[in-house]
Amino acid sequence: MRVALDAMGGDHAPAATVAGALVAARRHGIEVVLVGREDVVGAELARRGPLPAGVRVVNASETIAMAEHPAQAVRAKRDASIVVGMGLLKRGEADAFVSAGNTGAAMAAALLALGRSRGVERPAIAGLLPTVSGGVTLALDIGANADCRASHLLQFAQMGAAYMEHALHVARPRVGLLNIGAEPTKGSALAQEAYALLSASPLNFVGNVEGQDLTRGLADVLVTDGFTGNIALKTGEGVVETLTRELRAALTSRWYYRPPAFLLKPAFRAFRKRFDYSEYGGAPLLGVDGVVLIAHGRSDAGAIAASVRAAAEAARSGMLEAIRDVFAAEASGRPASGITTHH
Amino acid sequence: MRVALDAMGGDHAPAATVAGALVAARRHGIEVVLVGREDVVGAELARRGPLPAGVRVVNASETIAMAEHPAQAVRAKRDASIVVGMGLLKRGEADAFVSAGNTGAAMAAALLALGRSRGVERPAIAGLLPTVSGGVTLALDIGANADCRASHLLQFAQMGAAYMEHALHVARPRVGLLNIGAEPTKGSALAQEAYALLSASPLNFVGNVEGQDLTRGLADVLVTDGFTGNIALKTGEGVVETLTRELRAALTSRWYYRPPAFLLKPAFRAFRKRFDYSEYGGAPLLGVDGVVLIAHGRSDAGAIAASVRAAAEAARSGMLEAIRDVFAAEASGRPASGITTHH
Repeated sequence: MRVALDAMGGDHAPAATVAGALVAARRHGIEVVLVGREDVVGAELARRGPLPAGVRVVNASETIAMAEHPAQAVRAKRDASIVVGMGLLKRGEADAFVSAGNTGAAMAAALLALGRSRGVERPAIAGLLPTVSGGVTLALDIGANADCRASHLLQFAQMGAAYMEHALHVARPRVGLLNIGAEPTKGSALAQEAYALLSASPLNFVGNVEGQDLTRGLADVLVTDGFTGNIALKTGEGVVETLTRELRAALTSRWYYRPPAFLLKPAFRAFRKRFDYSEYGGAPLLGVDGVVLIAHGRSDAGAIAASVRAAAEAARSGMLEAIRDVFAAEASGRPASGITTHH
Repeated sequence: MRVALDAMGGDHAPAATVAGALVAARRHGIEVVLVGREDVVGAELARRGPLPAGVRVVNASETIAMAEHPAQAVRAKRDASIVVGMGLLKRGEADAFVSAGNTGAAMAAALLALGRSRGVERPAIAGLLPTVSGGVTLALDIGANADCRASHLLQFAQMGAAYMEHALHVARPRVGLLNIGAEPTKGSALAQEAYALLSASPLNFVGNVEGQDLTRGLADVLVTDGFTGNIALKTGEGVVETLTRELRAALTSRWYYRPPAFLLKPAFRAFRKRFDYSEYGGAPLLGVDGVVLIAHGRSDAGAIAASVRAAAEAARSGMLEAIRDVFAAEASGRPASGITTHH
């Protein structure tokens, strides 16, 4: 598998992206195409010794910053690393693309270069949430579509189920609807309508999931509009950060806490690792016609390597073909059996 | 101040409610009217020694359970503790009402008995969130209105600002809009429209607040629709619970963690206290024409006493009159100066 990697994307690029590419190539045997400024990437590579087989550089003279307006930046900067990387994917010169950069720009560039898979109304950004059981829940949409119709939510469920089944090997994924009550009649007009569509679909729909249960692993796929999903996800991230900081403050508030806190270091480390975004390999863009993963902006080399590996696995898994099949089957009137009944 | 308290509401009623009432009366000198089944409440009181001055019981033969349909239960059970308590408030026999029971039923009963303050389109449930700075943010709506218009969000901001200014003595409260980006053009159609209304209002509007900043104290009042607000709040609660549980699991995973963990107990206690809902006195219903606070369903006696005290302070503060003034001023075309300019 050949994975194109945006060498310029993320808070710690290019050091973290270049180092992550080397880990992915050396440890996991993945071919990595580093896309970015040849001089900058070349200098980073040179610092890190001989180039392993399977790592190469494709030049892209421009970069899109985190704060730039996604669609405008993609239109204006045709030689940006995100745009060039999507081009490699489009032309079949890479099997997947990973960026830790501007998510909106990645979505805009993907739509421009790859387009939507046939029958998809709205591509979505999906995020993997760690759950108490040690598993993960794929939540979507987490930010691409602030205003949604119920039919969009049904498609998010179909795409999410295909991803979990193929890329993460979850048989007959349980689909939940993020809502503010357990009963079918609870929630906004959108949520009630989506509940009806999901109930009537052949998906393994397990009903509403409330905010307090987000981390309880009640569903493999959790469907919501991009406004609510983004706020829920970021609220969770913010609370984890706040709690971690307050815990550290409490444990360093007295000098005599230091020795016992030191003895507990491995326990704290295990605790933090459970909620570490970098363990979960990035957020797939679902519904665009190619395998694209967005790594966390704060990714270090390990997180980048994990995302590159997840992208290679997703490309190998046939998840893209499965998504194409769902909507092709729908268009031709056949049931979307590829997703839900072959187990 | 006389506070009516739903003796039958909450997971630990009537033990926690009766004990909480006694604390509020003895320690804070508040007159408390316990509303509930006379036999049950009487037995609880008898167990706890002589009745302090200022505590009395008003009989209500029925109770509304947490899982009951709010509006139906309120219509069917005219002698339910929540309904009888609202009646006391309506007739001026109490200055405020507190329940740790069914929030929806409390809202339905309040609307039936008290109605809305003049000019209020939609009453809201407001919740106090702990923030890193040691302060609080009042978020509303957190569940009464799943579908909102921008004009509702503007009113939530006006009511929330009046509450924070009067009941919590925050001068010129900063109002934020929960949204998925910092710029005015970000978010759903609803969020963009609400942004424009808030910007044009005389409120101290500080712009959008994103999910990850919910606990950072960037605003004193945080406005959102009841669907998003409920999910954000409950996601936060769920993550706090999950993290606390996982931390405990990590710290008890090896026998040799026990002694150092024991030495750190006071630090863990201080940490937990920072995120303890019971410190924050309950969620006000804003826009109904009376002072009504909803305590957390899991309230213990201390949390009940804190809510009774917060209700007495809210009634004393003139926050209800301030809310009436805002909308009366609007109706008559005067600027809502009571809220925003007298500092």
